[in-house]
Amino acid sequence: MSLFRSFAAQEKGGRLQPYEFDAGPLGAEHVELQVEFCGLCHSDLSMLDNEWMMTRYPFVPGHEVVGRIVEAGPQVKGLKVGQRVGLGWYSGSCLSCAQCLSGNHNLCPQAEATIVNRPGGFANRVRCHWAWATPLPEALSAAAAGPLFCGGITVFNPILQCGVLPTDRVGVIGIGGLGHLALQFLNKWGCEVVAFTTSDSKRDEALRLGAHQVINTRDANQLARIAGSLNFVLSTVNAPLPWDAVINSLAPQGRLHIVGAVLEPIPVAAFSLIMAQRSISGSPVGSPSTAAKMVEFCTRHQILPTIQSFPMSQANDALDYLRAGKARYRVVLQNDLG
Amino acid sequence: MSLFRSFAAQEKGGRLQPYEFDAGPLGAEHVELQVEFCGLCHSDLSMLDNEWMMTRYPFVPGHEVVGRIVEAGPQVKGLKVGQRVGLGWYSGSCLSCAQCLSGNHNLCPQAEATIVNRPGGFANRVRCHWAWATPLPEALSAAAAGPLFCGGITVFNPILQCGVLPTDRVGVIGIGGLGHLALQFLNKWGCEVVAFTTSDSKRDEALRLGAHQVINTRDANQLARIAGSLNFVLSTVNAPLPWDAVINSLAPQGRLHIVGAVLEPIPVAAFSLIMAQRSISGSPVGSPSTAAKMVEFCTRHQILPTIQSFPMSQANDALDYLRAGKARYRVVLQNDLG
Repeated sequence: MSLFRSFAAQEKGGRLQPYEFDAGPLGAEHVELQVEFCGLCHSDLSMLDNEWMMTRYPFVPGHEVVGRIVEAGPQVKGLKVGQRVGLGWYSGSCLSCAQCLSGNHNLCPQAEATIVNRPGGFANRVRCHWAWATPLPEALSAAAAGPLFCGGITVFNPILQCGVLPTDRVGVIGIGGLGHLALQFLNKWGCEVVAFTTSDSKRDEALRLGAHQVINTRDANQLARIAGSLNFVLSTVNAPLPWDAVINSLAPQGRLHIVGAVLEPIPVAAFSLIMAQRSISGSPVGSPSTAAKMVEFCTRHQILPTIQSFPMSQANDALDYLRAGKARYRVVLQNDLG
Repeated sequence: MSLFRSFAAQEKGGRLQPYEFDAGPLGAEHVELQVEFCGLCHSDLSMLDNEWMMTRYPFVPGHEVVGRIVEAGPQVKGLKVGQRVGLGWYSGSCLSCAQCLSGNHNLCPQAEATIVNRPGGFANRVRCHWAWATPLPEALSAAAAGPLFCGGITVFNPILQCGVLPTDRVGVIGIGGLGHLALQFLNKWGCEVVAFTTSDSKRDEALRLGAHQVINTRDANQLARIAGSLNFVLSTVNAPLPWDAVINSLAPQGRLHIVGAVLEPIPVAAFSLIMAQRSISGSPVGSPSTAAKMVEFCTRHQILPTIQSFPMSQANDALDYLRAGKARYRVVLQNDLG
């Protein structure tokens, strides 16, 4: 009997309540983590509210975990008990498909999500396949690192995958949980960084986080002034944008990359791609090897999210805080469940 | 006095009539070609009809020229009188901007188009900057090669620019002037090639041109069967497509590349890009160095357009033939103007 103490919602949109369950025997290739910290992501709210029609209740949120390995199955590779690791959106993949064998485990059709049909990190313990537990060095703050494993990797992955160069002029749309990390990454990447925001109140903050210039996305004149100049623009927002102006901000061969799950289709004018050889792309989180590179990069440059902490026993307050749009820029729960 | 004999329209959509003009002195960096052959492209019709609001009359069409250099300015580099060359959509660029200096002359903001504000190749003579005259070896048929320099380079350029690999599974949408060349290029590139057409009558032809499989774009079942399987899809058509199904035909990390100038915006679902790390891009013709690589590749593999020939003196009949949708797959005029 392996009893986990967690916080779970019993129904769509429900309040979290203490929930104990028997986790069963540990898989041969799996590790069990003692949760230390767990970030709170908008996807936790979407899942809690069953927005994506795939939530199973009781639902235990949490997929930005930092914890220590307390048990490891006999086939676990490269990790040892006592080691501190991070765990993000994915907790497993098949390792044998063409994508996994190519290093693109994040594109595995069988990938298992940490909070889909299994309990997440709002708990004293959580489990994952060894490949998806990313070692976290002592030199990076465990209390703040959790959000790197979902919000962080989502914006770090495209910088690497799209071949962004330190000589590039880049843009980040949206200064929130994802965007405030993207600004830091791209500044340390060596780029000239332009922040796009609809909120003038975030201007100074954006500059502090690494932007060299801030554009108000609602001001057509400001957008027109940077037309044709950006090599790479990363959109982290999930609301429709003035898409024509955003695409026109791209230099020849420039790329607009989407990680914000905007639901309305993006109307793309073919001519705007053809004449300047531009592209539009998207991506989900990142692979284990990319997560390891991110951790190394964050450690070297001391890149961390700006967080607000709550005890895990006050997870409902934390959810309310996030729902109210108050997070600046990421909420992290500290495990006080034991 | 340098008198050129040409065919020109005096007004929007007008019939072509013999038109003589003084071409003035030859530029120091320019070559003058004795036109041997000139392909006929849909863009000639669009310009003749002033669809793009940039036509100047009298209008001399023609931007798929094969000819011999009869005169060269004193600053011409790398070419000599008597040499056979090809000339396409662009006849000049600045050579000094960031794009030209990076080898992307086709993205030069100052690029000069062969039939915009200057006379094109429906003439006994035509001129261009030396950088835009691509040497054509005797081993490649001069009578058929013309369409390579606009239709051909438009589909060859993205294969090279997008890094298509011989191990890729690729698709070509539309079996027309551009598509019938793309099938040949991609077959010789070593790829597995899927042709998309709305016309079952082109099925055998597509297989002969290099497709390994033919899909009817109007058949949702056929599209569903190849979902998630293509690494690269090249769209050469200028009509709206079942875009969701086309994007869903892409494998993880797959790319849809647009060269057909469809006017209606393409509605792109962000999730369809994000979840499988897909992209959508576009491009115009190609640079001089890409044109030279294309000519070398065509010569090695004897890739040529399938053409129908008309004497240049019957250019109006040729235009009617193209307008009627009868071209299989490209019309070429032979200069009989002297």
